[in-house]
Amino acid sequence: MGWLKIVGMGPGDETLLTPQVQHALAKASDVIGYFPYIARVTERPGLRLHGSDNRVELDRAKHALQLALKGNKVIVVSSGDPGVFAMAAAVFEALEDGPEAWRTIDIDVLPGITAMLAAAARVGAPLGHDFCTINLSDNLKPWEIIERRLRLSAEADFAMAFYNPRSKSRPQGFEKALRILNSVCKDTRPVIFARAVSSPQETINVVPLTEATPQMADMRTMVIVGSSQTRIIQRPDKSPIVYTPRFWAP
Amino acid sequence: MGWLKIVGMGPGDETLLTPQVQHALAKASDVIGYFPYIARVTERPGLRLHGSDNRVELDRAKHALQLALKGNKVIVVSSGDPGVFAMAAAVFEALEDGPEAWRTIDIDVLPGITAMLAAAARVGAPLGHDFCTINLSDNLKPWEIIERRLRLSAEADFAMAFYNPRSKSRPQGFEKALRILNSVCKDTRPVIFARAVSSPQETINVVPLTEATPQMADMRTMVIVGSSQTRIIQRPDKSPIVYTPRFWAP
Repeated sequence: MGWLKIVGMGPGDETLLTPQVQHALAKASDVIGYFPYIARVTERPGLRLHGSDNRVELDRAKHALQLALKGNKVIVVSSGDPGVFAMAAAVFEALEDGPEAWRTIDIDVLPGITAMLAAAARVGAPLGHDFCTINLSDNLKPWEIIERRLRLSAEADFAMAFYNPRSKSRPQGFEKALRILNSVCKDTRPVIFARAVSSPQETINVVPLTEATPQMADMRTMVIVGSSQTRIIQRPDKSPIVYTPRFWAP
Repeated sequence: MGWLKIVGMGPGDETLLTPQVQHALAKASDVIGYFPYIARVTERPGLRLHGSDNRVELDRAKHALQLALKGNKVIVVSSGDPGVFAMAAAVFEALEDGPEAWRTIDIDVLPGITAMLAAAARVGAPLGHDFCTINLSDNLKPWEIIERRLRLSAEADFAMAFYNPRSKSRPQGFEKALRILNSVCKDTRPVIFARAVSSPQETINVVPLTEATPQMADMRTMVIVGSSQTRIIQRPDKSPIVYTPRFWAP
């Protein structure tokens, strides 16, 4: 009897991969995913690795469902958490539109450390109070929806975590996002640019909202914008701590 | 030289505890936390466990900082992720108000699988698109702020994850929250009640928003409310899958 597990490998550091996912990988016959995530899986006899390119999520999902229905033990890998802007939703989109037989497959989602939690931890606790999480890519939704969510989130005084803030094919969106935030927030709350978190290439940059520029972000950057309540603690010879208190002070 | 690590132990299942946190626990001299989380730490010679009651977060934080300054290797444990409605913000509140010497302490935050990710994974991918995360407790913020955030989040059409939806000392808040959501959303989007996720006592209950009642939640329940886009896939002899597609369909 085959199965399909959609798993999160965390942001990159192997000590952030859960034992649950490690055990699943040890039992799999097939691992399917985007090339750089497949490269993180240890090869062994009997394990087939199926790497594919970006932007073919639905093809990858269908392939995984077909193999599982045939009786294979299939893992679909995502970085971070599979349920946050990653492969789990893509697999369920394919499942819903696919043949009835796919609904008989045993499917599990195994959570992982998503990028915003890893990034937040590196600077303190900027998501320590209410927050929202927005994918800034307009590949799959109209820009107007993103703009509306940014405005309402700023009015609600949420901290915000942005996935996919900027890419070569979408150079303008993040600039517009910063303009909207500045126009609604009107303050110097901290913005965190956390690139390649937990990898050897990690860089962390904290700037006031008024000084944030589009060039500070790329596709490997997680952006976290504080709420009006977010605070910075300066320390001698150490990087500052950015955190949002649990209480709300008017 | 002492240090302080504020770590997340995940929602309960030990296979969701990261190796990073396991390694830190193996090096610690002192572990500080709420009794039920301390009970999850394996005892060993040379390790002192300091359990304390709920609602003494600041005292616990100060104790941890004092011990680390004395040269101890101190871990503060939270369930889930320490940066999401947990101990990291409390430690930084204490640090900011405390003696200057505390700012010289080496402090790290080690992320964990927070309850909303574990709960989402158990039903599919309800947080697969933009979402917000709100602590429904009004112990540390006025109820008006919560109400405003609920209304704006519903207008923004976010999926929503609610921590601390209801307790014996706050029986009314969640009832008001459901009333607000019904009045703004006016539909039957799914609401997920995930209790004691990843523990032997786990229960998962999915109901339409119009049929959600306050009694379905307690302090061990994570509540996830879908967006207008959230879908349910029915399966023969299997629990339904709840997911929010990556794309936005008007």
